[in-house]
Amino acid sequence: MKIIIDCMGGDNAPLAPVQGALAAAKDGAAEIVLCGRKDDILSAAGGALPENASLLEASEVVEIADDPATAFRVKKDSSLTVGLTALKTGAADAFVSAGSTGALLAGATLVTKRIKGIRRAAMGPVLPSATGKFILCDCGANAMCTSEYLLQFAYLGSFYMQRIQGIENPRVGLLNIGAESEKGDDLRRETHALLTAAHEAGRLNFVGNVEGTDAFAGKCDVLVADGFSGNVMLKSIEGTAKMLMGKLKGVFYGSTKGKIAGALVRSDLSGMKKLLDPSEVGGTPFLGISKCVIKAHGASDARAFHNAIRRAQEFVESGFIAQVEENIAWMRVENNP
Amino acid sequence: MKIIIDCMGGDNAPLAPVQGALAAAKDGAAEIVLCGRKDDILSAAGGALPENASLLEASEVVEIADDPATAFRVKKDSSLTVGLTALKTGAADAFVSAGSTGALLAGATLVTKRIKGIRRAAMGPVLPSATGKFILCDCGANAMCTSEYLLQFAYLGSFYMQRIQGIENPRVGLLNIGAESEKGDDLRRETHALLTAAHEAGRLNFVGNVEGTDAFAGKCDVLVADGFSGNVMLKSIEGTAKMLMGKLKGVFYGSTKGKIAGALVRSDLSGMKKLLDPSEVGGTPFLGISKCVIKAHGASDARAFHNAIRRAQEFVESGFIAQVEENIAWMRVENNP
Repeated sequence: MKIIIDCMGGDNAPLAPVQGALAAAKDGAAEIVLCGRKDDILSAAGGALPENASLLEASEVVEIADDPATAFRVKKDSSLTVGLTALKTGAADAFVSAGSTGALLAGATLVTKRIKGIRRAAMGPVLPSATGKFILCDCGANAMCTSEYLLQFAYLGSFYMQRIQGIENPRVGLLNIGAESEKGDDLRRETHALLTAAHEAGRLNFVGNVEGTDAFAGKCDVLVADGFSGNVMLKSIEGTAKMLMGKLKGVFYGSTKGKIAGALVRSDLSGMKKLLDPSEVGGTPFLGISKCVIKAHGASDARAFHNAIRRAQEFVESGFIAQVEENIAWMRVENNP
Repeated sequence: MKIIIDCMGGDNAPLAPVQGALAAAKDGAAEIVLCGRKDDILSAAGGALPENASLLEASEVVEIADDPATAFRVKKDSSLTVGLTALKTGAADAFVSAGSTGALLAGATLVTKRIKGIRRAAMGPVLPSATGKFILCDCGANAMCTSEYLLQFAYLGSFYMQRIQGIENPRVGLLNIGAESEKGDDLRRETHALLTAAHEAGRLNFVGNVEGTDAFAGKCDVLVADGFSGNVMLKSIEGTAKMLMGKLKGVFYGSTKGKIAGALVRSDLSGMKKLLDPSEVGGTPFLGISKCVIKAHGASDARAFHNAIRRAQEFVESGFIAQVEENIAWMRVENNP
């Protein structure tokens, strides 16, 4: 397997992606391709690359200020465009980038293309609940959605939880503001009807509307949302966790008693901190794209890149894309019951 | 001041509302009116009411299964309808209920009425941030919104933070999924333009789009949202906090070392727990209604009701409603720049 790393994307480029890529090369599980400016990469790598790593040169860099919709076309020799083009032609199996989400999504959609029949690609981070995990899909790729997109997100999330998380019959919930079927806005009511029909046809295991609190209690394995409210949920989780962990730090550093207590439970607390730490996961694939494109967090450090490369390996090995292609006929709304 | 308590509303009625009401009567700051079934109330009160508390009889109870839109009209002798009617006629200054949000909102809108010129009433709980507090408005009263509603929520939230939280020039943020002005969906872009115009006219202190993570970092005092995404945010906060506090409990009860550590920092941790505990606040007014109607959490205990009655006192004393009425001319969208 060959995995391309965008060495020019993210807040800590090129050092963090290069070092994460070298750590992954050490694992030996995949061939690593470092994409970007030769001098920057070699200097970050300390002069030379190991045997199972190679260089894919690209002279330009997509910046946050560039228009996401056109950056990949305007900067033809950027690490983004060069990397995605290599992926498209089959020269590699996966592309990992911490660059601008919008530019990466536009590039993935227009260079590598969506799976035929998929209306919109979605992002689906896997989040912890009290009893396990759930995927939140979409969480920011599509600010405006139709019920048809949401139905497809339900399928994409279900296949993901089956293939990558090993859950046999994933329970699909619709993110809403109450449990009853008539709750929410028009989009929610339309989507509820489509999901119910797919459930009755035996194609999805729809468990109804789910509120954020219930998702954390473990009520579903797939939480379907439009990209706007999904992103609101994701950022609210991040914000709450950060604030609470900050207050907790204050408790343990604020007094001598606190410091003693902190020393006693340090390892347990670090496990808790990891629970919602984006670097632990590293990256999230764009579900619905015909190749494996992994978005890493903009603030990724070397460890996060290393983990994102692991996600790419898992995703390629899972056969997720083939499963979507095989089942696309009944994922199209017009063919649904 | 006279405050009516709906003694039949909420999961723990009549015991919790009656005991919360009696605790408030003991404070002596207001006359307390207990509304509901006489026998139930007197039995929960231990047989008799104190001097500054009185009974307002109502024989019916609005149940969660009742249609929220019509319950107040169908059950004319319910504590909800009798209480709100007394509020409307001026027989009291505030009404506190933990009953169904939908039924209470419909009753407040159609019995006591909105302030003239206000298009929709909103709920605005005050949430903690790393540096202070912010009001999230709306958070569930209106699942479907227009940009005009959101502009009015910005004004309502600003006045609330001025009058009740003592913040001089509240910073208004629009809940969105990125900081740039073109981010989000059509509703966000339209609202961004209206808020910018109000800011340029010197009527609001609009600081731009704010993501959930930034709100918790203290970037704004008022966070404007449609009721759907606001409610998603609120429930995500609740869910995250509950999960993390549960894990924390596991750390402190899971081992002997943990128990010792827990004993050392018990009081600090209980302060942290209170931070996001709805019972601490007790209740939230419907902003935009022409009288003080306070919604208490459905699961409120006696302490939560007592705190909700305190919120009613503060709200009546603040002069918030008069301020909205005085400024209504430029809160209407058609008169805005």
